[in-house]
Amino acid sequence: MARIGNGRGRTTYAKSGVDTRARARSLRPLLAAVTYRPPRSHGRPLGPAGHYAGLVRIGRETIAVTTDTVGTKVLLAEQLGRYEEIGEDAIAINVNDLAAVGARAAGVVDVINCARPEPTIFAALGRGINRGLAAAQCALLGGETAVVPSLLKAIDVGGTAIGFFPHGRRPVTGAGIRPGDRILGIPSSGFHANGYTLIRALIRQKGIDLHRPRSGARTPLGIELLRPTRIYCRAIESVADRPYVRGFAHITGGGVRNLLRLNPRVAYVLDRWPRPTGVFSWIRTLGAVDDRELFQTFNMGIGFAVIVTRRGVGPAIRALSRAGYGDALEIGRIAPGAGVDLPAWRLSYSEYS
Amino acid sequence: MARIGNGRGRTTYAKSGVDTRARARSLRPLLAAVTYRPPRSHGRPLGPAGHYAGLVRIGRETIAVTTDTVGTKVLLAEQLGRYEEIGEDAIAINVNDLAAVGARAAGVVDVINCARPEPTIFAALGRGINRGLAAAQCALLGGETAVVPSLLKAIDVGGTAIGFFPHGRRPVTGAGIRPGDRILGIPSSGFHANGYTLIRALIRQKGIDLHRPRSGARTPLGIELLRPTRIYCRAIESVADRPYVRGFAHITGGGVRNLLRLNPRVAYVLDRWPRPTGVFSWIRTLGAVDDRELFQTFNMGIGFAVIVTRRGVGPAIRALSRAGYGDALEIGRIAPGAGVDLPAWRLSYSEYS
Repeated sequence: MARIGNGRGRTTYAKSGVDTRARARSLRPLLAAVTYRPPRSHGRPLGPAGHYAGLVRIGRETIAVTTDTVGTKVLLAEQLGRYEEIGEDAIAINVNDLAAVGARAAGVVDVINCARPEPTIFAALGRGINRGLAAAQCALLGGETAVVPSLLKAIDVGGTAIGFFPHGRRPVTGAGIRPGDRILGIPSSGFHANGYTLIRALIRQKGIDLHRPRSGARTPLGIELLRPTRIYCRAIESVADRPYVRGFAHITGGGVRNLLRLNPRVAYVLDRWPRPTGVFSWIRTLGAVDDRELFQTFNMGIGFAVIVTRRGVGPAIRALSRAGYGDALEIGRIAPGAGVDLPAWRLSYSEYS
Repeated sequence: MARIGNGRGRTTYAKSGVDTRARARSLRPLLAAVTYRPPRSHGRPLGPAGHYAGLVRIGRETIAVTTDTVGTKVLLAEQLGRYEEIGEDAIAINVNDLAAVGARAAGVVDVINCARPEPTIFAALGRGINRGLAAAQCALLGGETAVVPSLLKAIDVGGTAIGFFPHGRRPVTGAGIRPGDRILGIPSSGFHANGYTLIRALIRQKGIDLHRPRSGARTPLGIELLRPTRIYCRAIESVADRPYVRGFAHITGGGVRNLLRLNPRVAYVLDRWPRPTGVFSWIRTLGAVDDRELFQTFNMGIGFAVIVTRRGVGPAIRALSRAGYGDALEIGRIAPGAGVDLPAWRLSYSEYS
């Protein structure tokens, strides 16, 4: 649960301008107003709503749909004059949400809202989109570009993805997760595209130069922070049809609390979470944000979790490795109880806001 | 084709800040960069790209996907403190694009990006979303809400819709349209959600009071301008499976030029376009925007076109009437040639930018 200020003068996501608790409070009346249920001839929505992807049964297929934008990471791109990474992110954030329900990506529609369309920026976005599509093995099905100078302070880049469940595969919701299961983690490529309002606030506060490497790095910090979101589709395709798979979690906005979107009647004990390195270690050494806030805002090094049966650990690690994710590792286990625990960090979370 | 200024001091969409030609120029390098083609096991994209909806064959179903936002109409909503209409628009603009390829709406995912989430605004959006869903007979499959104060000047409301083709229906692209066919029009409910940057510029320029009715009206102009986009789904469902149907056009951004998205090797002669009334007559009497610009920016009274064979006119009008669209009427015909002609207005368009 996001703390709204903590009395110690440290920075939180809420203080940087993103109040996730207020968002949850606003969504309740919106969802309460939506009472209409369509006739079966218009498809059959499958719950649970609020999961990573919307699911609907259409004829003989189950279709998954996601939509998301890169958010304020574009402001970093603007500062550095680099947009290719952002294009790739727009695909990544959406196809990863498809992967989180076990869906195979079929296609993406990109969305670009801008004040003034500029060919060089659009070309760079196109190159990134193409890289993202290749990594996710899906097609660009269309796009929407709006010129809305009176609405935006910067370019807004996002998209929509649709996926499906090949050969009788069932959506993976995590409902079958039970004590004794193991949690595998696939390392992320950085902060992905979440929490950049907070990251930018820190950079401003501390007067950090994006054009110089952080201590211990060779790449300028700005480039490191812009690194595109890793795409987990091939990883998930390599295990989604295996009976040992119990659940998936895309560790996106909300950090480790994303695990709470799966079965809420078990405890997620992350007792083997790898030591944060790279930008994750850098953000800790700044000392401005406490660990509780870091783990509930960022992926902190693990971008995707795969929950498997105890006996599935070996086969899953090998399958992931063959699919190109040789860095996947066991990061925890499922225990009786509830919530997400990081014992080594003395952190517990009980709510995904 | 959008004129970029016309030397007579009149207002154009480009001058108000929306340069559609610049947008087209920027999209070319983006699309050129997207060369990746996925393996068939990931679905089969169906052309043409750039049509109203992306189409992909998944297993035994063809899925249509659209995405769009309400754009700067939200600024009017903000001025008037009314958001319900905007919520309905977010559904309407997307499901109407599905209808334009003959797809039946299955579900929508809403997207709300805002600086600060406010429960009363979200509740109003929810009520509008619910009304839109009921009109389109589809479900809310999920939503995405981002709090991005550093990105936005106002709330941004949109969505994504997916649809399908029941019982062997084929996507309607208009490729079969030929000379002799007739163009039917379904009246719109106002400006829908396009061209509001221009409308707002006019209101500012002329010092118009939104709280007072325009001449000849009883409702305050602001309320009239906020009226939600008519939803054409039931109209299209009533005729989509009929052999006399040749094409559909959602008359959205780009005005009558939207017809050029259908078969480009025929002429669309709009020789029975109804006299503009209501807000369409009002915007003409302002005298600030010429007819050429009006017809290529707004729907000017007809929100959806249905192209049918000559013998299909009667049956189509009757089917539409039974579905609740008793105001549908014949507005033109297909002739040999190319382009869109409005002979009574001495207007021709040859390009959909």
